[in-house]
Amino acid sequence: MSDFWISEEPLDVQVVIERVTRREAGAINTFIGTVREFTHGKRTLYLEYEAYKPMAEKKLSEIGEEIKNTWPDSKTAIVHRVGRLDITDIAVIIAVSTPHRADSYEASRYAIERIKEIVPIWKKEHWENGEKWIGDQKENKAGIPSKEAMK
Amino acid sequence: MSDFWISEEPLDVQVVIERVTRREAGAINTFIGTVREFTHGKRTLYLEYEAYKPMAEKKLSEIGEEIKNTWPDSKTAIVHRVGRLDITDIAVIIAVSTPHRADSYEASRYAIERIKEIVPIWKKEHWENGEKWIGDQKENKAGIPSKEAMK
Repeated sequence: MSDFWISEEPLDVQVVIERVTRREAGAINTFIGTVREFTHGKRTLYLEYEAYKPMAEKKLSEIGEEIKNTWPDSKTAIVHRVGRLDITDIAVIIAVSTPHRADSYEASRYAIERIKEIVPIWKKEHWENGEKWIGDQKENKAGIPSKEAMK
Repeated sequence: MSDFWISEEPLDVQVVIERVTRREAGAINTFIGTVREFTHGKRTLYLEYEAYKPMAEKKLSEIGEEIKNTWPDSKTAIVHRVGRLDITDIAVIIAVSTPHRADSYEASRYAIERIKEIVPIWKKEHWENGEKWIGDQKENKAGIPSKEAMK
């Protein structure tokens, strides 16, 4: 199984960390994105994530390659969940191991920013007063085509 | 139990993450420090960590307060292991949750740098060709008294 995947099941941090644990590493940075209840005072009830799975996994792998090019001593694993997520559920887990700690932070941060930029995952926010499909980032940026364009 | 503690048992990432998971958070950054086999080509066989536990836990709590002052919306948990650790074993886990991701990275990074600066934990490196007590950081810095001075 690849170290970059989309999952319909609840995510397990331990599984992702195990993918990057190795004798060469002294540092593992993990980023976990969770469903937050309030955004600018607006209450989220739950979220739905959808992805075109082959393309999303390809893009996650590409991010892994980009990280490998910039931090050759690193090992990265990324999983993104799809489906319905409730408040505090985990949407994404990134783990990066490196020999030294500074690189693990930088590579992990790079990964989450790139996910928001290029990975075609759509989020439907179910608010208290309605719902709305948006990109995984707050505003749809250039990198992610609209949900309709992918059909 | 406090969210800042010293443990003689193997560390469990899940336990630390649970301490900071909450409805207000959209981001959890976790830093895991592991025992690396090679440092500048020198092979480590295993490590021993020692701490004056009440003081070490007090200093970890202080770091938690510093983070709370700088990032008021954050929640932090830190555990540091003592005893004998083999290669790939976890020495320290930091977890910080915040509403937005940038703060979680910054606060987590702050925590590990402060641990190296002010927490009295001593590391004995068992190399292939000998052993040496050193601070938790590579060079003993001003903040951490020598092991002898703490007796």
